[in-house]
Amino acid sequence: MNDLAPIGYAGRADRVRQRFDEAALLVTNLTNVRWLTGFTGSNGWVAVLPDRLVLGTDGRYRDRAETELADAGVDAEILTGFTRPEQHDQLIGTLRGLATVGAEAASITHAAWTSLAAEIDIVASDGHVEAERRVKDDGEVARIAEAARIADAALAAVAPTLGDGLTEVDVRDELDHRMRRLGAAGPSYDTIVATGPQNAARPHHEPGTRRIVEGDTVVIDVGALVDGYHSDMTRSYVVGDASAEQGEVYALVLEAQLAGLDAVSAGVAAREVDAVCRDIFEAAGRLDWYLHGTGHGVGLVIHEDPFHSRTSTQELLVGDVVTVEPGLYRSGFGGFRVEDLVVVTESGCRILTETSKDTPCLPSRPTT
Amino acid sequence: MNDLAPIGYAGRADRVRQRFDEAALLVTNLTNVRWLTGFTGSNGWVAVLPDRLVLGTDGRYRDRAETELADAGVDAEILTGFTRPEQHDQLIGTLRGLATVGAEAASITHAAWTSLAAEIDIVASDGHVEAERRVKDDGEVARIAEAARIADAALAAVAPTLGDGLTEVDVRDELDHRMRRLGAAGPSYDTIVATGPQNAARPHHEPGTRRIVEGDTVVIDVGALVDGYHSDMTRSYVVGDASAEQGEVYALVLEAQLAGLDAVSAGVAAREVDAVCRDIFEAAGRLDWYLHGTGHGVGLVIHEDPFHSRTSTQELLVGDVVTVEPGLYRSGFGGFRVEDLVVVTESGCRILTETSKDTPCLPSRPTT
Repeated sequence: MNDLAPIGYAGRADRVRQRFDEAALLVTNLTNVRWLTGFTGSNGWVAVLPDRLVLGTDGRYRDRAETELADAGVDAEILTGFTRPEQHDQLIGTLRGLATVGAEAASITHAAWTSLAAEIDIVASDGHVEAERRVKDDGEVARIAEAARIADAALAAVAPTLGDGLTEVDVRDELDHRMRRLGAAGPSYDTIVATGPQNAARPHHEPGTRRIVEGDTVVIDVGALVDGYHSDMTRSYVVGDASAEQGEVYALVLEAQLAGLDAVSAGVAAREVDAVCRDIFEAAGRLDWYLHGTGHGVGLVIHEDPFHSRTSTQELLVGDVVTVEPGLYRSGFGGFRVEDLVVVTESGCRILTETSKDTPCLPSRPTT
Repeated sequence: MNDLAPIGYAGRADRVRQRFDEAALLVTNLTNVRWLTGFTGSNGWVAVLPDRLVLGTDGRYRDRAETELADAGVDAEILTGFTRPEQHDQLIGTLRGLATVGAEAASITHAAWTSLAAEIDIVASDGHVEAERRVKDDGEVARIAEAARIADAALAAVAPTLGDGLTEVDVRDELDHRMRRLGAAGPSYDTIVATGPQNAARPHHEPGTRRIVEGDTVVIDVGALVDGYHSDMTRSYVVGDASAEQGEVYALVLEAQLAGLDAVSAGVAAREVDAVCRDIFEAAGRLDWYLHGTGHGVGLVIHEDPFHSRTSTQELLVGDVVTVEPGLYRSGFGGFRVEDLVVVTESGCRILTETSKDTPCLPSRPTT
């Protein structure tokens, strides 16, 4: 990752401080801990105090915490305990004497909360880090773009083989293996390879041993993980020549997806991106084939704010990284979904996904 | 998985009922939900009521829940809601009118707890499912054994290449890819390939781009995932001829590991398995090279009760599936760990790991 722009850790804690009203904020959501400090361990907390940060973790992670915080340029006191009582005492010692402390009730367990509340005055104070984490800086976008590039390259190698008589898991395994060989830490979620009249009709199908045959619709939803950052894209195919209905449905999904992309811009309501796709499907009499929302934010987690859904109340911001991913599905027909990953700009968006979506058709060369 | 013995879901809820004192138990830990019902979705709860089970999840999972509970032979009412308020109302409707309800405070978030406590009388009631989940039935052991077999086969193919000038991630990627091609859902944890004087000295090293060279110690910790069940093993190598110290340290680790295996039997204190290994290292003056506990239970999660640690208070039970995994590590030297996965029996244990551990030496055929 040394050739990618650095992530801008400076100022993050200050921006979060301006959002909460309590004397301090105890951050226990590990994604939020990582965003604030660069620390990637599987156990830890950060106390955002008025004048400093404290990171607590266990003894396994002392070296990692020191290295990662130094690499991030984050100045924080690091406390490591080898036993749970020791770690508990360190946390209480950090917070004792302060007035009311905010804590992330949506991520901390009730058992942990009860144990803290017995010794300090805490109140639920959620969403402050998430609100800041949503907009990505140049270093974060660079990592997401690199992850998108890796998924593009893996799919470019694998898509031409879809007509070769492979199974869904064959395709999934090859995609995942290639992404790693291209430098990804792994797939950014469970890769979806959904094929044929039944499986491709399920938006979240888990790949199985079904063999791809001529005439199938094929939906491939694949992303890579780079330095903690995710990518996300979907392309859809027909193996062999598309039927008239396949051609019509694919064209409709693509029309909606391009309209969704056109709608993305800073200041636009996230629900509007969903609405433009939904309207196109409704006008074509296919709205009942649409089974999910139109997209979501992507970053250190694969699904985060903002969501392009009918119930969203959020506006898109410059620096949001979001998907636009309408699809149509029907049991007996199969399905198509087309998904790009984009960065929201003042006047529109920059598309990070580079794989072509002009036509779904692939040659069929079954081996059987 | 159709050729493996079925998992014994019958009677599980009744065994859990005998452990708790409240009118009902609300199970929110998803591993516990799966163990009780076979349901594998990423969102759900089970209410263990006096006379029946209720499973709640969201609309995405209606089909999956019905199929998986039917496959498991579990008779439960299934409630699915499409919105969060609807799901909340279903949960409250299930529990309202009962006397005090136990809930898993160690897994439920404080926000969810608060929301429930506003409407029903709940108390923390933890560990009941875990206590029953610990001992594996024949169907569970069959899946763990199959996972162990897959990891054995992947390592058998990859170990002979360690002298070929590969990097750590090369080896990791090949192991993971082969496990999937052999039928695993994936690796059962992040595969460890730790090589050379510094990296092999870190028990939980993350594979990097270091190239393996002659004289290296190499620690490979690898397991497969089959139908939700994990395997776990470690083998260690020297690339080329072992030095006198490498030979001596490897022999010591192997001696401890064999002694640890010998100690495993129903009725034995889990800490005793740790103690026999520790004693051997201490007698050899190498105890300060031992940086972790000697093993842990393995099942639907990779680390679960019982733990072979100095602080354990548990006794081994027939049907526990546990690791025995002593190792020695020193910066500048590297390290060795040898780990088998075993099923505890009345009089000892049955070893599921079949990879040889007689000698760590591999031919060196560097390509450079």
